[in-house]
Amino acid sequence: MSNFTATREKDYSAWYNEIVTKAGMAENSAVRGCMVIKPDGYAIWEKMQRVLDDKFKETGHVNAYFPMFIPKSFFSKEASHVDGFAKECAVVTHYRLKNDPNGKGVIVDETAKLEEELIVRPTSETIIWHTYKGWIQSYRDLPLLINQWANVVRWEMRTRLFLRTTEFLWQEGHTAHATEKEAIEETEKMLDVYADFVRDYMAIPVIKGIKTHNERFAGAVETYCIEALMQDGKALQAGTSHFLGQNFAKAFDVKFTNKEGKLEHVWATSWGVSTRLMGALIMSHSDDNGLVLPPKLAPTQVVIVPIYKNDEELAKISTIANEIVKELKTQGISVKFDNRDTYKPGWKFAEYELKGVPVRIAIGPRDADNGTVELARRDTKEKKSVAREGIATYVNNLLNEIQQSLYDIALERQTRLTSEANTWEEFEQLINEKGGFVAAHWDGTTLTADKIKDLTKATIRCIPLDSAKTQGKCILTGAPSEQKVLFAKAY
Amino acid sequence: MSNFTATREKDYSAWYNEIVTKAGMAENSAVRGCMVIKPDGYAIWEKMQRVLDDKFKETGHVNAYFPMFIPKSFFSKEASHVDGFAKECAVVTHYRLKNDPNGKGVIVDETAKLEEELIVRPTSETIIWHTYKGWIQSYRDLPLLINQWANVVRWEMRTRLFLRTTEFLWQEGHTAHATEKEAIEETEKMLDVYADFVRDYMAIPVIKGIKTHNERFAGAVETYCIEALMQDGKALQAGTSHFLGQNFAKAFDVKFTNKEGKLEHVWATSWGVSTRLMGALIMSHSDDNGLVLPPKLAPTQVVIVPIYKNDEELAKISTIANEIVKELKTQGISVKFDNRDTYKPGWKFAEYELKGVPVRIAIGPRDADNGTVELARRDTKEKKSVAREGIATYVNNLLNEIQQSLYDIALERQTRLTSEANTWEEFEQLINEKGGFVAAHWDGTTLTADKIKDLTKATIRCIPLDSAKTQGKCILTGAPSEQKVLFAKAY
Repeated sequence: MSNFTATREKDYSAWYNEIVTKAGMAENSAVRGCMVIKPDGYAIWEKMQRVLDDKFKETGHVNAYFPMFIPKSFFSKEASHVDGFAKECAVVTHYRLKNDPNGKGVIVDETAKLEEELIVRPTSETIIWHTYKGWIQSYRDLPLLINQWANVVRWEMRTRLFLRTTEFLWQEGHTAHATEKEAIEETEKMLDVYADFVRDYMAIPVIKGIKTHNERFAGAVETYCIEALMQDGKALQAGTSHFLGQNFAKAFDVKFTNKEGKLEHVWATSWGVSTRLMGALIMSHSDDNGLVLPPKLAPTQVVIVPIYKNDEELAKISTIANEIVKELKTQGISVKFDNRDTYKPGWKFAEYELKGVPVRIAIGPRDADNGTVELARRDTKEKKSVAREGIATYVNNLLNEIQQSLYDIALERQTRLTSEANTWEEFEQLINEKGGFVAAHWDGTTLTADKIKDLTKATIRCIPLDSAKTQGKCILTGAPSEQKVLFAKAY
Repeated sequence: MSNFTATREKDYSAWYNEIVTKAGMAENSAVRGCMVIKPDGYAIWEKMQRVLDDKFKETGHVNAYFPMFIPKSFFSKEASHVDGFAKECAVVTHYRLKNDPNGKGVIVDETAKLEEELIVRPTSETIIWHTYKGWIQSYRDLPLLINQWANVVRWEMRTRLFLRTTEFLWQEGHTAHATEKEAIEETEKMLDVYADFVRDYMAIPVIKGIKTHNERFAGAVETYCIEALMQDGKALQAGTSHFLGQNFAKAFDVKFTNKEGKLEHVWATSWGVSTRLMGALIMSHSDDNGLVLPPKLAPTQVVIVPIYKNDEELAKISTIANEIVKELKTQGISVKFDNRDTYKPGWKFAEYELKGVPVRIAIGPRDADNGTVELARRDTKEKKSVAREGIATYVNNLLNEIQQSLYDIALERQTRLTSEANTWEEFEQLINEKGGFVAAHWDGTTLTADKIKDLTKATIRCIPLDSAKTQGKCILTGAPSEQKVLFAKAY
């Protein structure tokens, strides 16, 4: 049934592009590097947003909204931030167009030049900490636990739908605390929120870790991350949580009076996940026939397709289908009865396979007579005849089973594709032939990390939080090392 | 208790600015004309979004996301659209900054100039219809019922928090239809969705009408609107719904094959409401002591404040308060028990009055002994002692009563402030002294509308949908008129 030209085996990258567009997730737009998120893709993003937003609120955060434009000078205030973020960005220089005197549409009105250029936010630390200065005076104002859902722009040269786009959607949490300890706890708590979400909803296991110093967020003291492994053995950074120390508080002069009446700089964190998660979701579970979605994030969890030859049969089947719809909805299952007569059942089967609806129920005249339905799982493509009686409970269990099964497969893959290398030869072979995560000793220098990247395309994904200190020698230079770090080729 | 310096009576405009900032709704940002929506303000916007989004989905719409940048040339494609929208806007001309060779922060990299400038969307018809061209081939692809939640930018010279800001948040629906009739029905349906939402949730009555030709959305065949009256007798346009005819389909060459196999241009609508609704909400109900929020949109509907002298009393009161919290939550009421010991009850009373929490419950030691609580309504400031037993039902009914009462007051105001003028003298007097809506005959010309505006500052808000055709003479020129239109001074 597949109308795919690419397969994962032959060309994973082409397969990904094809599935994203053919399954109606997203497409490239008229603006270089910017995507259109199509309704079926956006519906999944909305489900992700809702779950994450609930989790943020459960952990005491509130939402707010800050301007998308940031005065250029703000970026220079935090020394390392400017290097990381104020370079490849969209710059607003004018605020008016006028009719072209030559009659060719509109042109920029040169008299409407901004005194100071505005940058479309690539991330909002600067404008937010500028604002926090007015909000924080006393320890009573802390902690400040704020999140923002927003669009951001980073002028990327090479873009890929969801994975790396010039404009993308994300949430960015920005919190302010009275103590270092509390800020670090917040950083770690939000990393856990992300890891739990990716595991429990996206059905993807992740490695929690911290970034090496040269991979840190620009302006952070420590960057925590979660790293996931895709089907092709490449890693994908799925979320980051930064402990910012007092860097931004110092850059924007944000102080508070502590309980002892003394002035101190505020401690900060920031953390974010983006529409990049859509890329991770698609790449983790889908197959050569289309999307495979974990039930918890599938906008439609069950589709019912009637199979009939005449109106009489359709009427009979519809009665049953509508009852099933009602029963499933009572259990909180999202279900669609596709009774369109403009499309044949075979077309519908292919369509829902492509779109990744987890469970398909087909009902024919014989099913109607026998009190059965034909039930098909998208993930395993198993089909079986199931009793009509008790179908809602059956489907509910099945959805849970699918969710768990997708996770188990992803976890098995991650386990299988995580190796240890003790020599350079081992390392090269593992990275080039097996792929996945390779744990190895590294001498702690940027120079060595860069050389390893040049030689193998592998980068240090993180220093896993759960890895033990072990004495050893750097796989490349032989210099002493105290801990293995995790390498992988990455998105 | 009020810490306000302005009152509605003396200076409505100053009162509005003060309430928006002091109640923590929004504040001006470092970027001219752009606001920061603060957590308490954003929480109300989120409630509005949730209700509206549900209503859009109930009426068959889905969400999607289109790029925030629009190529400059797109605006020239629809002749009247360019005049209305491509003038005062944010223009992105460059995509990179570099270090200032003089060491003063960062400057624009002149070598990174875009070939074609990008406009930050002031509205998205152009980029969306460019995209729809790829999505629509056949009548089977129609209708396309899509909504987008987004930020937009219109470079306003004079801005006011929520009412008119350079960047604002909104939703914009963009639908495509096979027939003119269906598109007009959609335009009217969405106007009704808006009017019902404003009435049932915001507790504000509106007049539904159509805009005169010179007030139409740039590119529309007909603009429908809802107009609401504020406490100062000025009108506020609360939402618009546009029938776009085939204008954008023609500009972007979007055709479909109809059931007869013939190619036709697609019919379009667009409709939107924005964070401006926050301004309407605040201005409609609030008083000189702070916000008054309709319970259906209040993020916190009930607050419980303990009044105690020692830990023993607090413990006793807390037990009762926590039981009440539980009971209220069971009824779906959002409630907060403010047991902070860092603030005194008096401070808390003032705070929640300012923030507009609809119902306040105070519990003192005597209440605890007597099985009562002290219950205060924010809108009327009435206080009464109420039995602890059955409190949840009591509060639930009270919240409904408050919601209804706010609407009744707003409706009474609208009725009282709606007049008819049959002569110019009457008209001037009504506009200048009484304010509100004034229905009057108008000769249908832009020239006359402009003159009336110059003389009185009143503009034609709309031609009400329910107004009957009546022969008459224009109040200014005496020229014949077939229908009264609604004038008002407006925001």
